[in-house]
Amino acid sequence: MIYDLIIVGAGLTGLCAARTLLKTGHENISFKILEARDRVGGRTQNQHFQLGSHSTVVDIGGQWIGPSQNNVLNLIQELEGLELVEQTWVTKKSGAGEPGLYEVLRRKPLTLEENQEVIEINRRLEQMALLLTVEEPFKCEQANKWDLISIGEYFRQNVKYENARQELELEVVSLTACSADKLSLLYWLIFLRSIPGGYTSLDDGVNGAQHYKLTTGAQNISVLLAQQLARKYGQDCIEYEQPVQTVNYEEDTVIRVITANREYSCRRLLLAFAHTLLLQIQFSPKLPKIYQELSSSMIMGQCIKTIFIYNQAFWRINNVTNEELSSEQALEGPCYNLFEAPLHNDTHHALIGLIVGDLASKWSKRPEEDLIQAITTQYQRLYSCPDAIPIKTCIQYWPNEIYSGGCYAGTFPPKVLTKYHHLLRKPIIDERIWCASTETALQWIGYMEGAIQAGEAIYKQISQTIR
Amino acid sequence: MIYDLIIVGAGLTGLCAARTLLKTGHENISFKILEARDRVGGRTQNQHFQLGSHSTVVDIGGQWIGPSQNNVLNLIQELEGLELVEQTWVTKKSGAGEPGLYEVLRRKPLTLEENQEVIEINRRLEQMALLLTVEEPFKCEQANKWDLISIGEYFRQNVKYENARQELELEVVSLTACSADKLSLLYWLIFLRSIPGGYTSLDDGVNGAQHYKLTTGAQNISVLLAQQLARKYGQDCIEYEQPVQTVNYEEDTVIRVITANREYSCRRLLLAFAHTLLLQIQFSPKLPKIYQELSSSMIMGQCIKTIFIYNQAFWRINNVTNEELSSEQALEGPCYNLFEAPLHNDTHHALIGLIVGDLASKWSKRPEEDLIQAITTQYQRLYSCPDAIPIKTCIQYWPNEIYSGGCYAGTFPPKVLTKYHHLLRKPIIDERIWCASTETALQWIGYMEGAIQAGEAIYKQISQTIR
Repeated sequence: MIYDLIIVGAGLTGLCAARTLLKTGHENISFKILEARDRVGGRTQNQHFQLGSHSTVVDIGGQWIGPSQNNVLNLIQELEGLELVEQTWVTKKSGAGEPGLYEVLRRKPLTLEENQEVIEINRRLEQMALLLTVEEPFKCEQANKWDLISIGEYFRQNVKYENARQELELEVVSLTACSADKLSLLYWLIFLRSIPGGYTSLDDGVNGAQHYKLTTGAQNISVLLAQQLARKYGQDCIEYEQPVQTVNYEEDTVIRVITANREYSCRRLLLAFAHTLLLQIQFSPKLPKIYQELSSSMIMGQCIKTIFIYNQAFWRINNVTNEELSSEQALEGPCYNLFEAPLHNDTHHALIGLIVGDLASKWSKRPEEDLIQAITTQYQRLYSCPDAIPIKTCIQYWPNEIYSGGCYAGTFPPKVLTKYHHLLRKPIIDERIWCASTETALQWIGYMEGAIQAGEAIYKQISQTIR
Repeated sequence: MIYDLIIVGAGLTGLCAARTLLKTGHENISFKILEARDRVGGRTQNQHFQLGSHSTVVDIGGQWIGPSQNNVLNLIQELEGLELVEQTWVTKKSGAGEPGLYEVLRRKPLTLEENQEVIEINRRLEQMALLLTVEEPFKCEQANKWDLISIGEYFRQNVKYENARQELELEVVSLTACSADKLSLLYWLIFLRSIPGGYTSLDDGVNGAQHYKLTTGAQNISVLLAQQLARKYGQDCIEYEQPVQTVNYEEDTVIRVITANREYSCRRLLLAFAHTLLLQIQFSPKLPKIYQELSSSMIMGQCIKTIFIYNQAFWRINNVTNEELSSEQALEGPCYNLFEAPLHNDTHHALIGLIVGDLASKWSKRPEEDLIQAITTQYQRLYSCPDAIPIKTCIQYWPNEIYSGGCYAGTFPPKVLTKYHHLLRKPIIDERIWCASTETALQWIGYMEGAIQAGEAIYKQISQTIR
C-alpha cells in the first residue's frame, strides 16, 4: 500500500500533525506514524515505579508549561483527563520549612548595581530581538552582524560587572542547556523573539514558563494523542521500534521508507524531529549537501534530568539561608537548578536536579554511580545534612538518547543561520519531504508549545499538496 | 448616487481603510471620505511657518515611530518620498553641549532599591498582561477583577516605595496622557499586551517607541495617502469641512449621511474615529443605548504639545546636571517631557514640551499667554538661563480639538470594559455601520501603527459584506 503520508517520529510535533488530519476534514488520507522508540512523547517522558505501596510517576523530560502557552493549554483541555498543577516557588530565603523548594544553585548573590546591569543588558537584547521576526530574521539589517559572534562574546564585549556577566551566562545555559559561548547572538535573539513577552515570560516564578506541570506527567499528552488517533485509525496507525534507516525518494511520486525489518511506501514524508537528526538516515539520492551541512552545524542542548527520592524532606528542616547556599560549596556539585517534586504521598519526598550544557556532556560519559554520589554530596552540603541518602534515583541522560540527540533543543552556533536559516521551514524536497519540530516553531522555540505549533503549521503546508 | 462605502474621517485609519480598496481588487467600489476639518491626518498634524529665510515644519501631533512598528514603516517605504530620522537621546547627564537633548522633567532621582521595585512591578504587570489577549481579554479569569480598580489604585496597593510609585504613575501618564487614577488596571494590561515587547518597546531611548520621526512631519503620511487616492479616484473622493451631523439608517439598505450643507447616501458607513466621538453625531434611529454608554464612559487622553523656538540652544551651554534638573523647581512647570527638535538650520533651535493628563486639561482652559509664560520660566529655571525668550511658539491644545476630543487616545476607566469591551471591534449595525480607530487596533493601541492596523483590519470586515 502507498500511504498518502508517513510521519517519522511520535513526539508532540508528529502526533499534532497527525491530529490535524482529524480536525481539518482530511480523514480519508491514509497515513502511518513510524516511531524509533517503544514509546510516544519524544523529549517528554514519564518514569513509573513503586514506592512502598504507592505507584508513582515522575517526569524525566520536558515538563513545564507557561500560562500564555495557549496551544498546549488548549490541547490539554481538549484531551480531557489531564490535570495541571502549579509549580511552587519557595526558596529557603522566602519560606524555610514549607514544601515547594526551588533554587538556582550556581547563582552568586548580586549587588543592586550588578542586578541593574543584568536587567539593562536583557532589556537591550529584547529591543534588538524586536527588530527582527522569527520567520525572516535577515530582513533586519543587523542580523548578519549579530550572527558573527556568540552571545557569550556579546556579554564579554558589553557587560561591565563580572558577576553580572556570569549571571547572564547562567540564564542562557539554563534556558537552552547550551553554553553561551556556543550560541550565536542572532540565535539567542530569534529564540527570545519567539517567546511572547520575552524574558518576562521565560522567568522562573509565578506566571513564568515553568508555571504549570501535569500531575500525571507531560508524556501523557502524547499518550492521549496516540490513543485518540488509534481510536479513529486503528491501533497500527503508529508502529513502534521502527527506526528509519533509509529513505529512497528516487522515483517521482513514491517514497520508500525502510526500517530494519520493514519497508513502507508513501507519497509524502514528514520527518517530525530536529534537523540535527537528519544525518542518522540514509537518503537515496543523497540529500542536497546544504542539508547535510545544516544538520551537522546545529548543536543540540545537553541536559541530564535527575530525580532523587528521600524518606525525609531534609531540605525543609535546616534553616539554611540563600546566602549560604550561594557559597563556593554550592557551585561544586553537578546540578544547576533544583525543584521540589511533590510525590502525592507523605512518606516520600523528591528533588529534581537539572544538569545542563558542558557539565551535562561531561557527566554523560561517566558512570551513573559517580553522578549519584556527586549529587548526593551536593545536596548534603547545600542543606547541611550529611546523612541524607536517596532511597531511589531516576536519571535521564538526554545526551545519550540517540533518537533525540540531546535536550532541550537544537541550537545554532555563530555563522550557521546566515547560511542555512532559509531552509528551516521549507520543504526539504518540494511537495514530498518536510522536516518539523519545536526547532521550526515560530513561537516558543524549544518548548512543548513550540512542538505543538510546529506540528500544526507543517500540516497546513503538507495539506496544500493534497488535492 | 448611492455609494458602496462612506468613510467618515480622513485620519490614518480612514485613509488606510480606503487604501486597502486599491490593494485588494475592490477598485470598482464607489466610495467617499468625509472629513470634518480642512485637512487630513487626524491626530497627526504639521505646522508650517517661516523662520527668517527658512521655511520650517514642526509636528504638533503624533510624531514618533518605533522600529518594530512594521505597518507604519512599510507604509512609509511604500509611499516614497518620506524620510525617517532617528530621535536623539542626549540628557544633560550623558552629554552636555551636544545637540539632541531629551529629559523627563518631572522624574525624581530613584535609589537603586526604588528603581528595582519599578522594574519588578512592571515585570509583574507584563506577566499579568500575557495572561490575556487584546481581542478577548475576558477569556482570562482575572480580567473581571482587574477591571474593578484603577492602575493608580493597583500601585497604591502593591508598591512599597513612594518614589517608585510616583515614577510608575509618571510612566502611565506619559504613555497615555491620562492619570493613573482614571485608568482601569485591565485597560492598562490590554494596552500593554497590545505592544509587542511590552515595556521594552514602549521605552524612550534607542529602539523604543520614539525611535524614529519623519523629517517632513507625520501628517505627510496622510497627505501622501490622500494624494494616492485622488490620483486613482479623483480629487473629490475626499470632501473637506464636512462634519457629519446626522446619520439616518432607517431604511433597510440606504444610509443617509448629512452634513451642514450636503447629504450623501451609502450602503455601508465606516466611522473612522474613536468611539468617544459617536455622541457628536445624531443617529436616527438612535444608536442602541449601550453604544451611548460606551461612548460617554471612555476617556480621551489629554495632551498639549508645545514647540518653543529660540535663537540660541541655551540648554546646551550651561552644564546643568540631571540631579539639579530633578529638583523641586523642575517639577513646577507645565511640561512633563522635553525633546530637542532639529530645525535643519543653524540659526534657530527648538524644544518640544509635552503637557499631559490633568495638567493638560487645566492649561487648556487658561489663556495661551499664561502657558507661554509658564513654560518659558520652566525652561529658564531648568537650564539656569533667565534671559532665554522664545522667538516663536507653536501650541496645539488637543483637548480643545472637537474632532479628536483629545490625544493620544480614548482610554477606559474601571468597570467600563467589563460591560462594553465586546462592542469595540464589532459592527455597530451588522453589515452596515462600523467604527474603527487606533483604539480598536490589536497591536499598538493609541499609536499611528495601531491606527493603520485598525484601518486595514476594518476594511477586511467590511469587504466581506461586498459580494
